[in-house]
Amino acid sequence: MKATVYHGARDVRLETVADPVLREPTDAIVRVTRAAICGSDLWFYRGITQWEPGDRTGHEFIGIVEETGPHVRTVTAGDLVIAPFVSSDGECEFCKKGLQTSCVHGSGWGDDANGGQAEAVRVPFADGTLVKAAPTMRTDARQLASALALCDVMPTGHHGVVSAHAEPGGTVVIVGDGAVGLCAVLSAAKVVGVKRVIAIGHNPERLALAREFGATHTFNSHEEGVGMTVVEMTHGGASAVVEAVGNQASMDLALEIARPGGTVAFVGAPNQIDRAPLRPAFLKNVALRGALAPARAYIEPLMARVVDGSIDPSRVFDLTLPLDRVADGYAAMDERRAVKVVLEVSQ
Amino acid sequence: MKATVYHGARDVRLETVADPVLREPTDAIVRVTRAAICGSDLWFYRGITQWEPGDRTGHEFIGIVEETGPHVRTVTAGDLVIAPFVSSDGECEFCKKGLQTSCVHGSGWGDDANGGQAEAVRVPFADGTLVKAAPTMRTDARQLASALALCDVMPTGHHGVVSAHAEPGGTVVIVGDGAVGLCAVLSAAKVVGVKRVIAIGHNPERLALAREFGATHTFNSHEEGVGMTVVEMTHGGASAVVEAVGNQASMDLALEIARPGGTVAFVGAPNQIDRAPLRPAFLKNVALRGALAPARAYIEPLMARVVDGSIDPSRVFDLTLPLDRVADGYAAMDERRAVKVVLEVSQ
Repeated sequence: MKATVYHGARDVRLETVADPVLREPTDAIVRVTRAAICGSDLWFYRGITQWEPGDRTGHEFIGIVEETGPHVRTVTAGDLVIAPFVSSDGECEFCKKGLQTSCVHGSGWGDDANGGQAEAVRVPFADGTLVKAAPTMRTDARQLASALALCDVMPTGHHGVVSAHAEPGGTVVIVGDGAVGLCAVLSAAKVVGVKRVIAIGHNPERLALAREFGATHTFNSHEEGVGMTVVEMTHGGASAVVEAVGNQASMDLALEIARPGGTVAFVGAPNQIDRAPLRPAFLKNVALRGALAPARAYIEPLMARVVDGSIDPSRVFDLTLPLDRVADGYAAMDERRAVKVVLEVSQ
Repeated sequence: MKATVYHGARDVRLETVADPVLREPTDAIVRVTRAAICGSDLWFYRGITQWEPGDRTGHEFIGIVEETGPHVRTVTAGDLVIAPFVSSDGECEFCKKGLQTSCVHGSGWGDDANGGQAEAVRVPFADGTLVKAAPTMRTDARQLASALALCDVMPTGHHGVVSAHAEPGGTVVIVGDGAVGLCAVLSAAKVVGVKRVIAIGHNPERLALAREFGATHTFNSHEEGVGMTVVEMTHGGASAVVEAVGNQASMDLALEIARPGGTVAFVGAPNQIDRAPLRPAFLKNVALRGALAPARAYIEPLMARVVDGSIDPSRVFDLTLPLDRVADGYAAMDERRAVKVVLEVSQ
């Protein structure tokens, strides 16, 4: 089969690799129909995190179950399934708590389990990992695209809002207008029911989409004094802040905006934050909450919101390419020509 | 009167300064009876934080009210009072929430408000700031010493335990066996009712006191692999961790020990933490909770525990000196010859 393989900074290639096979009785083989490129894929693509040449790429995919091991009970050949961005056994303490990213047996995609930007994937712990898509997702193209957003970006935005303790009727500030920040806006406005949703970004088109997603106020982060402006309009800062970029400037801005006693949830890998923003957190009694999203816990409830039409996270995808143009997709996101890329793999 | 004045690194002097006078109708003048030297005073003493020559020192003191402004209602001349380590108006949103360290009008001691390592202090917002001591504290020497511990170190330890969400019957790990760490042990074991209290430090005598305070397990932080040992004995880490040192090694250890989904509350100014421990917090969904203690919120409930005999935080003081030997007191703490120094100012 074909799969995307990392060779070095800004060098990913679609190559022929061995077909995946069942290894454990809890495995499933999934034929991928759509995969996505994640903002976090840019970390290794740009050489910021160190990967080994030969590593497989991609952790967001949906597809059709082709084959299941004898212990798999909840999905069967022919099912359309959504894969969260890590596997999880579904049975450990953390899975039962809804913290599947800390599953004692689960792991990320890539390497051994194959990557999702490929024609097929071996999925460990299929029962604990995969979620069967709603029937309407097979026929409604927009819902199908939203299913792909449920692998990572929509649960990640939602987890930020939940982890920041944003409350119905309250206020939340979301720093970042990338795909995750936009999904956080959608979650806050349409899922949690936050009344005042303040989005901060630097791209006018994305901020316009944030407003369509329910942001009540948007600000350009490049404007002087935006932090102070938000502190003033919230009369002393927001109790709930989502940091959805992962660099020093956005983290510092999030801390500046946080109200004493509040929470800053950070949903992106903090690979470019060198200086601990611990002093303002200390002085203001603010919690810096790490928030790697346990996507598996949220896929089913968020899928229900997709099906009933209250959210359409598919709108964060703005470029669709066939799998054999995966390298072009990475380049488009790297050069900021696209927010988020869909790869069409098969029907 | 005499007051302690900062002149430079490792240079504090008792000098004659102007007597404090009432400036605002909400002020009180307090004649200091006992003051303490705080571990955090060592930051400026060692030149790590930058102070100006001439700044007054000391933020832990108890004393007798000498004079009150016309708007002061809750304390009166002759009362024995306990001062928390910052002043607070008692009326703003944050004071009403019990987060007096974020009071919109309050401030720290030193400079304008005088420092507490002195014969007298002008106390702003006397009603919002001062707490009248229990009557038995005037006659019981041990309770009187504990009253001084209520200014900062005992509420700070307690706030760490509360902020880490330690639960009755649960487990807490306390990293640090200084005065704050010891008070956190006391709070966990005797106030909150935590069942398994694990203390980590490097001083055998202090760890022995931790056990007397109720620690069920103690570990030497200099031993290889102590983090892994605690992770193993807690079967995957502790949900509640208090970081009571404020340096890189202790913060890294606290993060290592934190259970996925848990909280690390850090109660010391993070002046010597350069590297953000955000990556493990992100991966494990751990909250790094800044926890500058709103001492004012805790003085009354903790005082009740002192009076009923369930806690005796006075035991963290191990050296008593007259005020005119304040410089010796700083040197003793700087050189680790004393954990915490009491200054006898007047009767």
